[in-house]
Amino acid sequence: MDQARKGVVTRDMVRVARSEGVEPEFIRDGVADGTIVITRNRMRKQVNPLGIGKGLRIKVNANLGTSNDRSSVKEELAKLHAAEKAGADTVMDLSTGEPITRVRREIISRTRVPIGTVPIYQAVIAAVKKKRPFVYMSADDLFQIIRLHAEDGVDFVTVHCGVTRESVSRLNDEGRVLDVVSRGGAMTVVWMDFNRKENPLYEHFDRLLDLAREFELVLSLGDGLRPGCLADATDRGQVQELAILGELTERAWERGVQVMIEGPGHVPMDQIQANVLLEKRLCHSAPFYVLGPLVTDIAPGYDHITGAIGGAIAALAGADFLCYVTPSEHLRLPDADDVREGVMASRIAAHAADICKGVNHAWDEDLKMAKARKALDWQAQIRHSLDPDLAGKIRSSSLPEDNQVCTMCGEYCAIKLIKKT
Amino acid sequence: MDQARKGVVTRDMVRVARSEGVEPEFIRDGVADGTIVITRNRMRKQVNPLGIGKGLRIKVNANLGTSNDRSSVKEELAKLHAAEKAGADTVMDLSTGEPITRVRREIISRTRVPIGTVPIYQAVIAAVKKKRPFVYMSADDLFQIIRLHAEDGVDFVTVHCGVTRESVSRLNDEGRVLDVVSRGGAMTVVWMDFNRKENPLYEHFDRLLDLAREFELVLSLGDGLRPGCLADATDRGQVQELAILGELTERAWERGVQVMIEGPGHVPMDQIQANVLLEKRLCHSAPFYVLGPLVTDIAPGYDHITGAIGGAIAALAGADFLCYVTPSEHLRLPDADDVREGVMASRIAAHAADICKGVNHAWDEDLKMAKARKALDWQAQIRHSLDPDLAGKIRSSSLPEDNQVCTMCGEYCAIKLIKKT
Repeated sequence: MDQARKGVVTRDMVRVARSEGVEPEFIRDGVADGTIVITRNRMRKQVNPLGIGKGLRIKVNANLGTSNDRSSVKEELAKLHAAEKAGADTVMDLSTGEPITRVRREIISRTRVPIGTVPIYQAVIAAVKKKRPFVYMSADDLFQIIRLHAEDGVDFVTVHCGVTRESVSRLNDEGRVLDVVSRGGAMTVVWMDFNRKENPLYEHFDRLLDLAREFELVLSLGDGLRPGCLADATDRGQVQELAILGELTERAWERGVQVMIEGPGHVPMDQIQANVLLEKRLCHSAPFYVLGPLVTDIAPGYDHITGAIGGAIAALAGADFLCYVTPSEHLRLPDADDVREGVMASRIAAHAADICKGVNHAWDEDLKMAKARKALDWQAQIRHSLDPDLAGKIRSSSLPEDNQVCTMCGEYCAIKLIKKT
Repeated sequence: MDQARKGVVTRDMVRVARSEGVEPEFIRDGVADGTIVITRNRMRKQVNPLGIGKGLRIKVNANLGTSNDRSSVKEELAKLHAAEKAGADTVMDLSTGEPITRVRREIISRTRVPIGTVPIYQAVIAAVKKKRPFVYMSADDLFQIIRLHAEDGVDFVTVHCGVTRESVSRLNDEGRVLDVVSRGGAMTVVWMDFNRKENPLYEHFDRLLDLAREFELVLSLGDGLRPGCLADATDRGQVQELAILGELTERAWERGVQVMIEGPGHVPMDQIQANVLLEKRLCHSAPFYVLGPLVTDIAPGYDHITGAIGGAIAALAGADFLCYVTPSEHLRLPDADDVREGVMASRIAAHAADICKGVNHAWDEDLKMAKARKALDWQAQIRHSLDPDLAGKIRSSSLPEDNQVCTMCGEYCAIKLIKKT
């Protein structure tokens, strides 16, 4: 950010500009005013720097990570492979099952996509390992883990700095159907409640900024008070937290630290646009990273679809970065196939919005497909598909007699009928 | 429609009102002014009359039917069962593979949901069976098949009356990437071109109205010129056809015949609202029945998701009836599992919009789920799911050590953490 403000175009800016089809100066200016972040930890060598924000292609994140119930390095690497193959732009390692450090390091060493983490998880687990309730964790313990992640090369970290006495008190005053559903948010609330102290990531925000500066770590300001059901959406607690994140955004920018803002969550369709507007206004157009949003609570097993609906609407309204949701959300830890489906659903949402925003040739991809369909050229149709493997597999599962058409319409294919005339 | 205009509340209106949670007079008034249709053929005894339109729950249709490449009565009945189980409100039998009449009659005899068809398919196939190109089909041949479908008890038929010399000429003048992609539309265009005649369903529209009156058949005025790719959306041909359908709507209403208007198709997200508005204005708020819409062309294998994004946006903007799209769209004839996935995706879209519109307790379903989640009551969570079978299956595929949580977060479940404090 310092370089950009001095007017310098760095090598990373050039690489981002090239992959986005824009001028390097556009990236530089976006980084300078905070509307674009480039995720790249100074310690990380093998990484493709990624630009997220205003005027750029909408990005998609896939969450990986172990839990105490299911923890296997091999499975996480399989999920990483599935996420990359499906086209995820970033992955977050949210492991809460040991070996946490090993899983993180393996992931970082095996991919070139930017990596994010939520360090408080490991800090809490480290505290529990000392056979004490995690609330005895100190601020130093937490900062130590954040430093460990930064040293390992993590490119962005979720930090729930807006979960403060003020925002939690507003949340409690109003009351909620489903209280706090963010893991990091809940850990922070429980810690604050037990210790009767302010959130250390808020109280010592300058210390966090020092650390972020040191590693060029992007801070993803987490929405610990995000709604966990439609009924809690856009309530006082959520909006209060967002206002605080706006203040912290200013402080980060003053110190030359890049930030993204995380957003909900469970949101009725007709509140999504307002949520994006609120973020853009309260946080001065910092990149907005949304989880879903999920437009109904009642579709476990299909939450990649509810998330794609919400994500598409959010992206069109101005969200910059979509965190995927998989079919297994609310039910179990995702497996590699869930990861693929989740990434694909979010990519569809992102691409549908990119088309409308006229971003980086998004429209051309659809035009190529339309022309392949007109030509009844099946090889080209498969090739231009978002997921050529799946499209090819479905088609070959049911081949028509006439190889120009498909088994839905057969000889009564409209395109073929019209062509013959 | 005649009864409603006389102020009579029929038994069907009462049944529809009960299932929608509204007053019977509301249904009567909607039927009287054409903003609501009740689908029920006079010949059909075993059917649940269904209301579609303004102020009612958004409905979902599943397309079934054979093709010349894949044709099995048994498979169609399996698809029917899958559609009903998944909660489809109507099914359309689009068979183009023999035995067409038998498939239709079997479907009608085995379900209580309203049935739609596209009679021109069978008319064309009957013509081809006479070993002549289908363009030799006469207007009488076509009307004879429509009558056969009506006599069999079909509740609504798609008739592409707006594919006229005028609309086709406008379409050709402007040019398209993908021309006509509606099967019925393409058959009509080819027939008109060969015979150098006007579309018989337009020319003899009064004859069609007589037939519809006789059976209380709902006419679903088809969009034969719907766009088949984003690049063709909302073009001159499509809009011209819609304007003509608006004129035909007036003529149908004058004769007391109920109509719905069919809509696209492939539409960029930011054009969907305008498409709904155009239909509501040009067709005087007749119920709008959309196919998808698909918000990108490049996702074969995932078109139930692209259709759910478009369907949700359309429904929120005022569309009344969503035709599902399955994962196999553009690739092959769907199987029973595709049918389930397609119905579920469209139901999510419909429900997400119903929530925002405050329709018939849609909100309550989400609130029940939120409370079940708060209570960590897994049986209730499964029970309140849109698809309890799938949700239960996914959960039991990966059971946690602690049965209060799931394997995603395990003991670090946010809801559980907060509860303990």
